[in-house]
Amino acid sequence: MSRKKLRSDMGWSTADRIVVRGHDLVDLIGNVSLGDFAFLELKGRLPTAEESRVFNAITITLVEHGMTPSTIAARLTYLGAPEALQGAVAAGLLGMGDRFGGPAEEVARMLQEALEEAGEKADLQALAEGIVARQVEAKRPIPGLGHPVHKPVDPRTPRLFEVAAANGFSGRYVELIQVVAEQASRVLGRKLTVNATGAIGAIASELGFPWQICRGLAVMARAVGLVGHLQEEQADPLAGEIWARVEDESSEHLRES
Amino acid sequence: MSRKKLRSDMGWSTADRIVVRGHDLVDLIGNVSLGDFAFLELKGRLPTAEESRVFNAITITLVEHGMTPSTIAARLTYLGAPEALQGAVAAGLLGMGDRFGGPAEEVARMLQEALEEAGEKADLQALAEGIVARQVEAKRPIPGLGHPVHKPVDPRTPRLFEVAAANGFSGRYVELIQVVAEQASRVLGRKLTVNATGAIGAIASELGFPWQICRGLAVMARAVGLVGHLQEEQADPLAGEIWARVEDESSEHLRES
Amino acid sequence: MSRKKLRSDMGWSTADRIVVRGHDLVDLIGNVSLGDFAFLELKGRLPTAEESRVFNAITITLVEHGMTPSTIAARLTYLGAPEALQGAVAAGLLGMGDRFGGPAEEVARMLQEALEEAGEKADLQALAEGIVARQVEAKRPIPGLGHPVHKPVDPRTPRLFEVAAANGFSGRYVELIQVVAEQASRVLGRKLTVNATGAIGAIASELGFPWQICRGLAVMARAVGLVGHLQEEQADPLAGEIWARVEDESSEHLRES
Amino acid sequence: MSRKKLRSDMGWSTADRIVVRGHDLVDLIGNVSLGDFAFLELKGRLPTAEESRVFNAITITLVEHGMTPSTIAARLTYLGAPEALQGAVAAGLLGMGDRFGGPAEEVARMLQEALEEAGEKADLQALAEGIVARQVEAKRPIPGLGHPVHKPVDPRTPRLFEVAAANGFSGRYVELIQVVAEQASRVLGRKLTVNATGAIGAIASELGFPWQICRGLAVMARAVGLVGHLQEEQADPLAGEIWARVEDESSEHLRES
Repeated sequence: MSRKKLRSDMGWSTADRIVVRGHDLVDLIGNVSLGDFAFLELKGRLPTAEESRVFNAITITLVEHGMTPSTIAARLTYLGAPEALQGAVAAGLLGMGDRFGGPAEEVARMLQEALEEAGEKADLQALAEGIVARQVEAKRPIPGLGHPVHKPVDPRTPRLFEVAAANGFSGRYVELIQVVAEQASRVLGRKLTVNATGAIGAIASELGFPWQICRGLAVMARAVGLVGHLQEEQADPLAGEIWARVEDESSEHLRES
Repeated sequence: MSRKKLRSDMGWSTADRIVVRGHDLVDLIGNVSLGDFAFLELKGRLPTAEESRVFNAITITLVEHGMTPSTIAARLTYLGAPEALQGAVAAGLLGMGDRFGGPAEEVARMLQEALEEAGEKADLQALAEGIVARQVEAKRPIPGLGHPVHKPVDPRTPRLFEVAAANGFSGRYVELIQVVAEQASRVLGRKLTVNATGAIGAIASELGFPWQICRGLAVMARAVGLVGHLQEEQADPLAGEIWARVEDESSEHLRES
Repeated sequence: MSRKKLRSDMGWSTADRIVVRGHDLVDLIGNVSLGDFAFLELKGRLPTAEESRVFNAITITLVEHGMTPSTIAARLTYLGAPEALQGAVAAGLLGMGDRFGGPAEEVARMLQEALEEAGEKADLQALAEGIVARQVEAKRPIPGLGHPVHKPVDPRTPRLFEVAAANGFSGRYVELIQVVAEQASRVLGRKLTVNATGAIGAIASELGFPWQICRGLAVMARAVGLVGHLQEEQADPLAGEIWARVEDESSEHLRES
Repeated sequence: MSRKKLRSDMGWSTADRIVVRGHDLVDLIGNVSLGDFAFLELKGRLPTAEESRVFNAITITLVEHGMTPSTIAARLTYLGAPEALQGAVAAGLLGMGDRFGGPAEEVARMLQEALEEAGEKADLQALAEGIVARQVEAKRPIPGLGHPVHKPVDPRTPRLFEVAAANGFSGRYVELIQVVAEQASRVLGRKLTVNATGAIGAIASELGFPWQICRGLAVMARAVGLVGHLQEEQADPLAGEIWARVEDESSEHLRES
């Protein structure tokens, strides 16, 4: 009982050929980098030199953030299941949700919906006013602005914008997030600047990625970082020590009673 | 009650600085590709031009294999939890175990243990004889040889070896896996060639990756491919159709009774 | 640099004692069932006989739904990683998101927020009118009503309500979801009845579970079902056949061109 | 291109009926507990009263172990992805691998393979001597014996064996693991006793569970415990504090340099 033909354009193979997104894989091996291959996966074509520089810039920014909940969870998981490194990476990725992987998606959505609705010639200042007013009214922070650690300026942001501009990807999305930051600073009465997530959400939009997949950029990049952490954990394990300390301290009040 | 100092060299940051493996991230953005950044994560230093070509060659080979159990599982998961793309990627990665992600690790282990034990001047033919004999005795297939689809020759293998050789990474590991293939063909009486996994396990060993992390190369690469599949699933969902067909057929015998 | 004392009341142990939620585990073994132990985990006390019947009734309803995206994903994952059954269960659980695990949470939230806001003596008809009007205005379905397969009446619902009533757990939440169903039927002009998820969300609220954990009831129950499916998959594997069919069909158009 | 008929006996449904393992679900709701339902899932029939007591005894023993790597990983994951509780449970389960979920499987395998090979009338002392000799020769610990914390006697073990005996499930598997413990103590020259995992592996074998699914018993039970921990984390979060401490300490040496 077939209702719909199953159909995928990602890849296929025969005995002597492997094709990825229309390219013979053998032609790509040795000529295309991992980042450009990721672009091919998502866009169905290889990037131009400019697209490559910008896409690789945003993905490397997402790889490594030191000891985060995600990397600690991966290390703890590896302690329990050393037979299945894939499980430890998966556990780490599961923390890339609304709080860590979601914000780039949220920024891209905010910018894409605003510009799509308003059309090409929209007044960015008016759009920014609308965005800020809506968030303030809903008592929600404005996605892509401010950072608990990197303040007043997230050092990644000017560099990401610089790379985007130098390669022709500093358009309306990048402009809008900056106008939003200025408007938010005025309304909230304190200096708010675009953080790395805000820059990435805007630049991913410039590259034409739909907002729905932007969380995926963070997820694929973080997978790289997690493998790095697990290699370090293999050589010098920390998970056992973290476990022992947390277990001891968290049950201290019960032992004493 | 601290027993061991927690210590990681992966990355750290202050208000105005983010450091990854000793490099200021801002210096890398716009200059380093995702593949080279992955090398940095794992090696603690950026690759040479030659290392970069070889490392990117093996990682892109692992990204996309079309509709596999892993990508189908990711699509089915996304159907149930569209709020959490990270979960769908994680579900897909969880299938990169002993059968799909493990073989590269197994090849690297086989080669590294053989050469480490036997020393630099080991006779490769003797090593290959030992390896084949042990696997045959244990009635286990020899890792890295043969392929159910790509036969008699896996088209990726000669290209991977060519790229490795052109960049100075065709050494003892690459030689050994080839001698193993010849020896296995002799002993088993049928032509066995090195498959892509065999080539990758050997080349990863040439690049100095410990076998324990080789499964991680497959996992990080596959994360990229899974995001590609999920983007396609967002645009043109197949999971519902797969579900309906499997559910109907698998319970048919119960409905009829 | 400790900012907050870590503290958990779930469980702790010494050389000769294991304590779970204040109970010596050894006293529970042989006397307490898995369902009642789950209640203890969540409530910090063992259930009464009535609570036990109602809690077990809602959890068993959530265990097994046949071949769903979740169980198919678990089977496909097991094919790739037979060394790590935990990964296959995890992959299956990852599909218990907004579409399959979330609705019970959504119902419980809708009912709990409505009754909490309106107070004990609230007029249920007025609350139901507000709920239905809000959902209709937002063009969103009303959680807990209707079912694509089990119509006009979900056979689990009357039984769940019967068990709840027989044990003294048919209060304001159960009444409200039923009034919501009647109101929705009136407004939308077609008969809508409470589905099993709606009943479970209401009864979990009667048992005093905060809505935030209700998705967890589905998740723990489904873990049981997934282990059942994986045992069947071990004995009679289907994943390989599903893979082969999906791969063949989905790339047919590419092979032909 | 269908090669094999897809077929599952777990469950199915029509508009007015839901059937699980041959039972109408509506008949089970209110009459069957979660533990007995789990038995039904795995065995295809409801347990006897004796089986129920023994099966519930082993599963509740596996639910809660306080602050373990698994529960800490789940809490850290929830911090990053509060929208997807299922992901946090999955992350916690992923740590139930060779080190924490695997041992019950290993014990069951050891006992089942020994008794299957040797037949019904096998001399248990001879079997135990063989088992201990093989493990000692391979320099591997004997599964199911000893415990880092619960020594000299794991308090769960005598109680589990007592419940098994009282219900008629103290047969050759239970006897064998005890003879193995005595033999190991003699050979290794120190008192080794059966731990809870050893008891569970033996009793699961008495209940007729194939060793391949025994890890699944730990996984399903732990899912219950993880939901308990996540409810506590929702009310009183610890993950942020753990993150802050680990991040600070682990990068201290880099900040100072």
